[in-house]
Amino acid sequence: MSNLVNSNSDRKKKIAKDWFTDLRERFCKKFEEIDGTKFSRKNWNHSGEGGGEMSTLKGNIFEKVGVNISTVKGSFKEDFRNQISGTEKSASYWASGISVVAHMQSPFVPAFHFNTRFIETGKTWFGGGSDMTPAIPNKEDVEIFHNSIEKVCNKHNESYYGDFKKQCDEYFYLPHRNEPRGEGGIFFDHLNNNDFDSDFSFIHDFGEDTLDTMSAIIEKRMSKKWSKEEKDIQLYKRGRYVEFNLLWDRGTLFGLKTGGSTEAILMSMPPTAKWK
Amino acid sequence: MSNLVNSNSDRKKKIAKDWFTDLRERFCKKFEEIDGTKFSRKNWNHSGEGGGEMSTLKGNIFEKVGVNISTVKGSFKEDFRNQISGTEKSASYWASGISVVAHMQSPFVPAFHFNTRFIETGKTWFGGGSDMTPAIPNKEDVEIFHNSIEKVCNKHNESYYGDFKKQCDEYFYLPHRNEPRGEGGIFFDHLNNNDFDSDFSFIHDFGEDTLDTMSAIIEKRMSKKWSKEEKDIQLYKRGRYVEFNLLWDRGTLFGLKTGGSTEAILMSMPPTAKWK
Repeated sequence: MSNLVNSNSDRKKKIAKDWFTDLRERFCKKFEEIDGTKFSRKNWNHSGEGGGEMSTLKGNIFEKVGVNISTVKGSFKEDFRNQISGTEKSASYWASGISVVAHMQSPFVPAFHFNTRFIETGKTWFGGGSDMTPAIPNKEDVEIFHNSIEKVCNKHNESYYGDFKKQCDEYFYLPHRNEPRGEGGIFFDHLNNNDFDSDFSFIHDFGEDTLDTMSAIIEKRMSKKWSKEEKDIQLYKRGRYVEFNLLWDRGTLFGLKTGGSTEAILMSMPPTAKWK
Repeated sequence: MSNLVNSNSDRKKKIAKDWFTDLRERFCKKFEEIDGTKFSRKNWNHSGEGGGEMSTLKGNIFEKVGVNISTVKGSFKEDFRNQISGTEKSASYWASGISVVAHMQSPFVPAFHFNTRFIETGKTWFGGGSDMTPAIPNKEDVEIFHNSIEKVCNKHNESYYGDFKKQCDEYFYLPHRNEPRGEGGIFFDHLNNNDFDSDFSFIHDFGEDTLDTMSAIIEKRMSKKWSKEEKDIQLYKRGRYVEFNLLWDRGTLFGLKTGGSTEAILMSMPPTAKWK
């Protein structure tokens, strides 16, 4: 029985991890095509077992884009253990994921963030999200982005989009500014419908669609010229992005305060930001 | 008796507040002389009683400098009350202070931070500190800065400098980078030797000396030309400064999470910062 359970657990982990790795390749390939320059790669080791691979590109279209994957295992410290689902019987965890953060040269192209992950403690679940942070919001792009996510969600479960959009709006919010971080998207955690293959199918479609939609919006807007004033709007918007990530983003705070790879976690920082 | 207590309390508050206001005037006057441009002022109101005045200058020598004073009173919320000394019998507080943050155009001039404050809860005390964050540390400037503070400290109490320097090194530290924020200075809190006039005399000398020493270092280094590469060193150092302030600075987090003036608190943010 134990072998069956383990082999089933191993099968799920392998499916998730292999697809994260595969999706990373395709994000990098597509973004290299768009930019005309190449990603550089760097590995890091986790303090427990495993580690990650950062892919970073600073180019013509992408001022800075990171595509990170990681697969780690270990044991939560007591004080954090209580914050994590499924740790009643054991503090051990396994986690694998992909994370994409794109800060663009053009203030007319939104910054994009996407990540998804598969976690195993005493329970297993998927988490993830995708959201856009335009400096100068373009109604058409915002609609394309949201409509595309809604379509993918509805293909799998008609309650997903409304629920996950609401979670995104609540999560990516700066209370100290009374401002949303950007124009939203979706955010979800603890997704487990007791059917791994069905849940994975949603995650898969969501990730593939995000790659396509992001790329389409970037390609549509990237050639438009901008002024110094328009660039400054973007740089001040990035100041807010920094504030959100360092003050409020649970993932960033959790990673930094539990000995994650600072370099990989803070890959989300913009290349340049301004404050008034 | 109650009147005597109140009038003594009022006397202390008035002395502290008047000097903070006076010192603010002289910081602004001296920095305007150095820069050749003028500060602009803006008031804000506290959610309880009182408020503050921000003075900001973006000029030729100072890329951005803020000199803030504030005097506020109110009642701590229950969850914060326990973190504050002297709140056993009452949650009410009175606080007045001055805060200076200077980000310089030249990467050869250190960024400076100075603040001091007088607090009354069930207890009264002074807190404060002064520290330098050079992008390209110059041994001579670091020595001048530390020696000057040491001399002021020793005039009042020979244990102050060693004790307060250690607190500064511990406080202005980025655990996630294993890096100090800068080249240190002093940091202290809960200073009360049961002799207000003597404690105020130290605070006064410390503040006056900080104005003189900062100004002398700025004037000595501000005319040296710099390259784009040297400026970039400063901008990346400022990225670390942002990380410290938003991730670890108790004052910033406390202010932002208890409804302080976001604009006044985040005056400490540099005008521009970079991340790799």
